[in-house]
Amino acid sequence: MRYASDNAGPIHPAVMEAMLAANHGYAMPYGADDLTVQTVAAIREVFEAPEAAVFLLGTGTAANALALASLCQPWQTIYCTELAHIHEDECGAPEFFAGGAKLSLVPSPQALMSAQDLRVVIAAQAQGSVHGVQRGPVSITQGSERGTAYSLDQLGALCDVARSFDLPVHLDGARFANALVAQNCAPAEMSWKLGVDALSFGGTKNGLMGVEAVVFFDPSKAWEFELRRKRAGHLISKQRYFAAQMLAYLKDDLWLDMAAKANAACAALAKGLEATGQVELSHAPVINTLFARWPRHLHQRLHAAGAAYYLWEGALEGQDPSEMLTARMVCDWSASQSDREAFLALFES
Amino acid sequence: MRYASDNAGPIHPAVMEAMLAANHGYAMPYGADDLTVQTVAAIREVFEAPEAAVFLLGTGTAANALALASLCQPWQTIYCTELAHIHEDECGAPEFFAGGAKLSLVPSPQALMSAQDLRVVIAAQAQGSVHGVQRGPVSITQGSERGTAYSLDQLGALCDVARSFDLPVHLDGARFANALVAQNCAPAEMSWKLGVDALSFGGTKNGLMGVEAVVFFDPSKAWEFELRRKRAGHLISKQRYFAAQMLAYLKDDLWLDMAAKANAACAALAKGLEATGQVELSHAPVINTLFARWPRHLHQRLHAAGAAYYLWEGALEGQDPSEMLTARMVCDWSASQSDREAFLALFES
Amino acid sequence: MRYASDNAGPIHPAVMEAMLAANHGYAMPYGADDLTVQTVAAIREVFEAPEAAVFLLGTGTAANALALASLCQPWQTIYCTELAHIHEDECGAPEFFAGGAKLSLVPSPQALMSAQDLRVVIAAQAQGSVHGVQRGPVSITQGSERGTAYSLDQLGALCDVARSFDLPVHLDGARFANALVAQNCAPAEMSWKLGVDALSFGGTKNGLMGVEAVVFFDPSKAWEFELRRKRAGHLISKQRYFAAQMLAYLKDDLWLDMAAKANAACAALAKGLEATGQVELSHAPVINTLFARWPRHLHQRLHAAGAAYYLWEGALEGQDPSEMLTARMVCDWSASQSDREAFLALFES
Amino acid sequence: MRYASDNAGPIHPAVMEAMLAANHGYAMPYGADDLTVQTVAAIREVFEAPEAAVFLLGTGTAANALALASLCQPWQTIYCTELAHIHEDECGAPEFFAGGAKLSLVPSPQALMSAQDLRVVIAAQAQGSVHGVQRGPVSITQGSERGTAYSLDQLGALCDVARSFDLPVHLDGARFANALVAQNCAPAEMSWKLGVDALSFGGTKNGLMGVEAVVFFDPSKAWEFELRRKRAGHLISKQRYFAAQMLAYLKDDLWLDMAAKANAACAALAKGLEATGQVELSHAPVINTLFARWPRHLHQRLHAAGAAYYLWEGALEGQDPSEMLTARMVCDWSASQSDREAFLALFES
Repeated sequence: MRYASDNAGPIHPAVMEAMLAANHGYAMPYGADDLTVQTVAAIREVFEAPEAAVFLLGTGTAANALALASLCQPWQTIYCTELAHIHEDECGAPEFFAGGAKLSLVPSPQALMSAQDLRVVIAAQAQGSVHGVQRGPVSITQGSERGTAYSLDQLGALCDVARSFDLPVHLDGARFANALVAQNCAPAEMSWKLGVDALSFGGTKNGLMGVEAVVFFDPSKAWEFELRRKRAGHLISKQRYFAAQMLAYLKDDLWLDMAAKANAACAALAKGLEATGQVELSHAPVINTLFARWPRHLHQRLHAAGAAYYLWEGALEGQDPSEMLTARMVCDWSASQSDREAFLALFES
Repeated sequence: MRYASDNAGPIHPAVMEAMLAANHGYAMPYGADDLTVQTVAAIREVFEAPEAAVFLLGTGTAANALALASLCQPWQTIYCTELAHIHEDECGAPEFFAGGAKLSLVPSPQALMSAQDLRVVIAAQAQGSVHGVQRGPVSITQGSERGTAYSLDQLGALCDVARSFDLPVHLDGARFANALVAQNCAPAEMSWKLGVDALSFGGTKNGLMGVEAVVFFDPSKAWEFELRRKRAGHLISKQRYFAAQMLAYLKDDLWLDMAAKANAACAALAKGLEATGQVELSHAPVINTLFARWPRHLHQRLHAAGAAYYLWEGALEGQDPSEMLTARMVCDWSASQSDREAFLALFES
Repeated sequence: MRYASDNAGPIHPAVMEAMLAANHGYAMPYGADDLTVQTVAAIREVFEAPEAAVFLLGTGTAANALALASLCQPWQTIYCTELAHIHEDECGAPEFFAGGAKLSLVPSPQALMSAQDLRVVIAAQAQGSVHGVQRGPVSITQGSERGTAYSLDQLGALCDVARSFDLPVHLDGARFANALVAQNCAPAEMSWKLGVDALSFGGTKNGLMGVEAVVFFDPSKAWEFELRRKRAGHLISKQRYFAAQMLAYLKDDLWLDMAAKANAACAALAKGLEATGQVELSHAPVINTLFARWPRHLHQRLHAAGAAYYLWEGALEGQDPSEMLTARMVCDWSASQSDREAFLALFES
Repeated sequence: MRYASDNAGPIHPAVMEAMLAANHGYAMPYGADDLTVQTVAAIREVFEAPEAAVFLLGTGTAANALALASLCQPWQTIYCTELAHIHEDECGAPEFFAGGAKLSLVPSPQALMSAQDLRVVIAAQAQGSVHGVQRGPVSITQGSERGTAYSLDQLGALCDVARSFDLPVHLDGARFANALVAQNCAPAEMSWKLGVDALSFGGTKNGLMGVEAVVFFDPSKAWEFELRRKRAGHLISKQRYFAAQMLAYLKDDLWLDMAAKANAACAALAKGLEATGQVELSHAPVINTLFARWPRHLHQRLHAAGAAYYLWEGALEGQDPSEMLTARMVCDWSASQSDREAFLALFES
């Protein structure tokens, strides 16, 4: 009954073992260690991008905000959805790191923007005048904050719109693995082959202790990014422990296995919820996040029984016991069948 | 022969075990977990400061820059030494996080400023006019970047100067443990009892994977700091692993043991170097860092033999084999006698 | 036929004479001159606010952005309409000066937001969590960017909403005089008596060479503002010439006379346009700005004849001669009847 | 007896007349007027730089800070003297506009740095590491804040040092005219021919109401600068009045005449002071600013008689009547012989 966040579960044992294995002897700090070198090579190989610039960081907010700052001038605006993590959940980090840049919001049912809406919003920002801000990078979240994901066609169409305005594309891939598994394609196919310039490649929500990579497929921004990272306090001294995690993550497709488990757990949860007949799902399950609605009295029962999830809309206490309230449920790699069964059983009692 | 940095050694096994022990089950993210609560309590107890606001972060640069930003307005100047880490080694992070604040440098032989020099530099910044920047916080590094440390009297005198100008005091305690052991006093005696307002309490250079705490002895800045930390991408989601490290660090005085070992190793190294008759020490050993000079030909021999330390002044290659070049050597908790003996033996051959 | 902007007309002769009169002898710089002292007193008197802090600046963008920066923390969001000058026409100046703050847009037909919409948008920004930005000041434009103006009741209701959330209120009064004449009330009644905390009091669009005042009705932010102004390069050295303009502006109600003329010219223009039978007005005239639509072929004729106004929506060249395109027309104090008649005559030919 | 500042005198009548002449009819705002076009052409001609990008601003602080921001990345450091206006008198504006950049101070007796000292300071900032800030632009003040000026050889040598490190050069020319007259050369010879990239070309301290130009000899930064200027609130709407001033300034060498008068007045003042036998001059007069020392009792007498100058070091009140205190005296174009005689007479009484 643990659906609060994919940040709330444990680290995968293989990842923990890799850190343990890295913990002997001397290693030069700040990324000048062997494991970091191996990690860069491994990510390049996974993405079929031998020239890519790869950097490790400790949080997704740092990865997003620093990547965007490298793609954006302070007098530009970043295009994203109304529900984007960079807009809603980073306390203004992109604006801060980009020196006071703006975010322009694209309408986005289910947290997905359409190529047409993106085009309209970009076009509406008149250019050639100093009075308004200038057009800047497009930031796309894949898989999305609402548990949906773009098809490759949809994602490619967004990149094409950006390209048609000569704007760079950033992909917030905090749940890149979950989306990749859902779309069943190669990492390169869901990134640079479509026109993505910079990727926040998440690990923290998928079984790591706290490691994200920023990947610039065009390495020309590498040195600027290194300086931005250091200046932001995000250059890790004992980087071998970050690298060890990422290497374990990529080894033998552990990352894909964990994402597949999380997605499957979410699909099973959705199916189970639907079967209760008391629940309205927001959408068919795509990745590992689900939004659903059920009556207040049911929420109260679940809550009393210790179920952990975020009440997204509405308050647990209220007059109308039948009012529908929205829950967010997130599954991680460690979600168990027994846990799910216990959760679903509460709906029946 | 591993003296490059106290960031280069391994994590203490007890710390690693604590992370392992924390890695089961579910824990609410972003510091809402039990271990974080325990960590805050433990630090308050160690510092005899039951009201202190305590925050965990991943790097010393982040700890320093965010603490200073909370004490400093953008139009103020921060007082520090010419050798301060915040001036020399953070790529402008304090200036960035404080919105473009200035650093005013106080002369500092051996990286220690005198109360008198501090007073002169502060007084020289005329006030009451909008043309110059305004006086801001005093940032003191204890133990210092040159391996020295302030006595309690010296530190208290600096705090008194700050107070006489009504300025807050920040202590960069990346090597707080090493200085504490050297001064043989209680944590409170080397911090708030002297007038320190905010402390960067280091763990990373003393056996942790990468954990620092920022401690505000007056908690009025707590909420501002939390927002600054989040906005900087330094709010860790899986904070239980940070907290587990810090708890293990404080348990049974492990932190003091490690610092004592590092200091002792440095003292023994200094003694051994002196005994070679070929070396000029910069100062008597105080904490775990040593600067010393010996001839180029000796550096070349050591280098060829695989000794790891930073050449601080001068180049390994050069015409004059007898030219004196400066080395920086840092010992961490894992420095061994055999390693030292091997290093010193190279001086004799 | 000069309707491009109220920035495009000449300075009122009385204002120019005042500058001339100020141009003799010696005057201490940076506001330490007699005329500046008189100006501060005059503005305090006009606003019945003897304690107000008053500052002169050269542009409306500077006035708005610096006033907002003084009311807003970097991690907060500023509430304004989708059409606000601070959002559309200042190239991100508020975001820049406020250290990367956000703007949250309130729906606003005719550039006016309703108290209810404002309340909804503020309430939607959940508080108490560090993940989202925090609620910040409400910025209201009076008279608006679309030529409309709030009634005192409407303005008071907006201030009440801000107060109910404990948020400060900024009034962008680039066209404060025009709105004041339209609402026929005292300056205090349209500002601090309703709950306005800081006012950008415009002069540039109403007959001055380039002078705006920022008025803080609560002077507690005065020193901070002075430092921000200096640091922004907006502290004028020869301030007597700014003060001379503002004194002439306020003397014998010149500012109200000029605004009344501009408003009347706009009303007459609207009436004349309506009488042509070829024009759709956006709204009944309130201040000195008008938006209206007429067919492309008419725009082309006017353009060829040298009429000066901005084509707000649509392109002068296009296939369909009967397509309705939107024009913005602004009148200043110098708008003449003969000019208007010449302009309107073009519609008949 | 008016020596407080070259900001304290009146505007030259010819400049005021030019503004008056500009004050008729309609002119497109924001620099799209004829006078601005003529001004750009005139400055290009004066500087023999037909491709230069030229921008008008209202203050020297804005000119300096925005020019430097366009030449400097946030993680770089700007080289200047310890007495530079950008360091001492702009309340951190360069740091603010450059996103938190640092200033590195070069020793500078009499406010002049030597090529050798500049080289040493630049070289000391190690490169290729992310830990320290990176080398950035060199900013030189000509004529200096202490009334001295570089010879063309000295200035060229500084530019050569900058070039040897591949760094751009900014010239703070708030008193460019005074230095030019002193060096008796062409504007191009004291700027781009030596290697200056961007010039703050002052007018305010030399008889204008408040107009400075920023000149980029390489126009590649033009669009960025325009956006920075707008975003800083420094794009003037009624720019015709700025342009009119600058055109009058350049017409018939008025600017050089005014500077020559100011310099001559300062030389005569120095000679007169020397003749009193009671005064120690800081240096032989070069431009229009003089620092000199005389006893406290004399300061008191001058002060009581209404003499206006800044007491730079020491306090008017004090125990020792014979203590030497330092005065700063600045002459502008309007300094008169009778005023000087009255001032000098006070030394004799």
